[in-house]
Amino acid sequence: MGVTRPDARLEDVLRIHSGRLVGDGVPVPDVQEAETSLASWDEWFEFWARKAQRYETLADEALAQGRRRSAGLLYWYGSLAYQYAQFLWFHDLPVREAGQRQKQRLYDRAASLLSPPAERFAVELDGLSIPGFLRLPAGAGPHPAVVLLGGLESTKEESYLFENLCLERGLATCTFDGPGQGELFFQARLRPDFERFTSAVVDYLTTRPEIDAARLGVLGRSLGGYYAVRSAAVDRRFSACVAWGAMFDLSHYDRLHSSAQQGFAYVAGFDTPAEAAAYLRQAIDLSDVAEQLRCPLYVLHGAQDDLMPMPQLEKLRQMTKSVPEAVWDVPPDGNHCCHNLYHVVRPRMADWLAQQLGGNP
Amino acid sequence: MGVTRPDARLEDVLRIHSGRLVGDGVPVPDVQEAETSLASWDEWFEFWARKAQRYETLADEALAQGRRRSAGLLYWYGSLAYQYAQFLWFHDLPVREAGQRQKQRLYDRAASLLSPPAERFAVELDGLSIPGFLRLPAGAGPHPAVVLLGGLESTKEESYLFENLCLERGLATCTFDGPGQGELFFQARLRPDFERFTSAVVDYLTTRPEIDAARLGVLGRSLGGYYAVRSAAVDRRFSACVAWGAMFDLSHYDRLHSSAQQGFAYVAGFDTPAEAAAYLRQAIDLSDVAEQLRCPLYVLHGAQDDLMPMPQLEKLRQMTKSVPEAVWDVPPDGNHCCHNLYHVVRPRMADWLAQQLGGNP
Repeated sequence: MGVTRPDARLEDVLRIHSGRLVGDGVPVPDVQEAETSLASWDEWFEFWARKAQRYETLADEALAQGRRRSAGLLYWYGSLAYQYAQFLWFHDLPVREAGQRQKQRLYDRAASLLSPPAERFAVELDGLSIPGFLRLPAGAGPHPAVVLLGGLESTKEESYLFENLCLERGLATCTFDGPGQGELFFQARLRPDFERFTSAVVDYLTTRPEIDAARLGVLGRSLGGYYAVRSAAVDRRFSACVAWGAMFDLSHYDRLHSSAQQGFAYVAGFDTPAEAAAYLRQAIDLSDVAEQLRCPLYVLHGAQDDLMPMPQLEKLRQMTKSVPEAVWDVPPDGNHCCHNLYHVVRPRMADWLAQQLGGNP
Repeated sequence: MGVTRPDARLEDVLRIHSGRLVGDGVPVPDVQEAETSLASWDEWFEFWARKAQRYETLADEALAQGRRRSAGLLYWYGSLAYQYAQFLWFHDLPVREAGQRQKQRLYDRAASLLSPPAERFAVELDGLSIPGFLRLPAGAGPHPAVVLLGGLESTKEESYLFENLCLERGLATCTFDGPGQGELFFQARLRPDFERFTSAVVDYLTTRPEIDAARLGVLGRSLGGYYAVRSAAVDRRFSACVAWGAMFDLSHYDRLHSSAQQGFAYVAGFDTPAEAAAYLRQAIDLSDVAEQLRCPLYVLHGAQDDLMPMPQLEKLRQMTKSVPEAVWDVPPDGNHCCHNLYHVVRPRMADWLAQQLGGNP
């Protein structure tokens, strides 16, 4: 089990993130192979890129045999492999961005093969084109729906397994890339008004006859937890909000891991964390809207989260006292977003959403 | 990652079996905790029993909140934890058998909450009562069906995730405990005529209007691969057979790991491997029926399998030349039953069955 590894960076990534990778669906044998075979962080991207290429080949073969469901699974494995190849690859941006595009390409190949399929859509705002995916549960609609928001280096392609938890509980799911995320990064960097992008997507959902516009929820993970509260505070069409990780502001920016600092600087369009710090502290702050939140709120937060420390949760708690119902689910042994407890906490959030929105928990 | 561990037994179990545990659905954080926190094999059973008890508590809470789907998942986690608590616990049989009964009890609690539900049935044969579960796919029947056979220490409760692969491809699934397995162990030890129990279950399936008796397949894993070929060779109602692991006989019994030797002796009703050897070599042998096999055959076998070495596969290949179609899927890097490649090989077997039986691959 494990090798003696001189590379602290690689050790850190595996220690901090393996629960997230596995919880999101990266095959465990691949994570184990990374743990036992990689000697340094330099080998990370290429390792996962090779896995992705292998899955694409297997998917092509399955598709040629008429095995559409397996092909969808395999393209999705490939997409996930590229997602995690590039997610912290900030020191070599052309490679990172190539990985990002490969992830999108493979998810696009998977989309129509998933069950239920993911339908791509695009919404215009300020001359930008917001890309997204919509999935509908079985049965007659109109269905309640939940808008799923990614965080710092997560995108609309990352939440397939969590979508499935929602879909099997009768909730439609909608994901999109906002400013600084995925495809939209190439058009728009992180900015203070993410909630306008969420609302533009809600405008679109209300045009879909399959969706019950009176039963909409929003959930965001990690930095997406911040975006979710912001979006639900401003847009009263949401009747349930889940912060999968509590974040109120970036007052602790200087104390983050350097990879998180680099990530924030990158998505905000700065070359270095030092240059980005002042902008980020101003752009990421719930003070202006948190007290406006009026819908039921569920906060899942790991007490051991070192990216979003507990004072962040306390600020959020103080500023959301006007909500009609709040659940503060804070496992004492949970790490960032409770990724180390994914198999227990993720169904719990989906259950709460289904009960709030009238799905089938 | 990992601790320096003086206990070779524990190290062996984790090295050999972690892919099986994870592939069958044991939560990865639990496997990781076992890897990093257990100091010796003596702690194994109690570790998993505590996990099971915790999942049962969480399941009870979910059920009280009307969260039936999550409750089913959590009872199933508990059942799996007891399955793997006891699966190699041959040195302390009262504890093993208590774990076996707890596994059954928790799966029974999960059964009606699963989606689709698992319906318990019982079939009489020779004064014995064969217990089983039937699950039906969505949509109008009658459905093709696949009978899933467990191996040495696997039982009808173990195949939930593989069942789901079949069900989403339009195949009903039927599992049962045969001689030496699970509940039936307490009535009947391992014996040479497992195929009669399979046929009794097929008799039952043909009485069910939801099942299309003209489209039946059989799949068995590990020792179950032996039972599957035996059953399909003798019962011509099967029109597809999958050996998830190729085993022809027990001529290599003396060269097995001691835990496998002990397991065989236990399920056959002997106190020691030495006492059991002659009986087992006589009772487990396909020579008398293999050449009768006439339905399409799919064999998945890991070339690195050290429980069922490659000469076993070669014997099977020589003796099944009369089948109309055979696929020999032998990944060069696969271990026992290719558990280290579960995420790729399991959908492939389900696809083949669906294509043979007219499901929806």
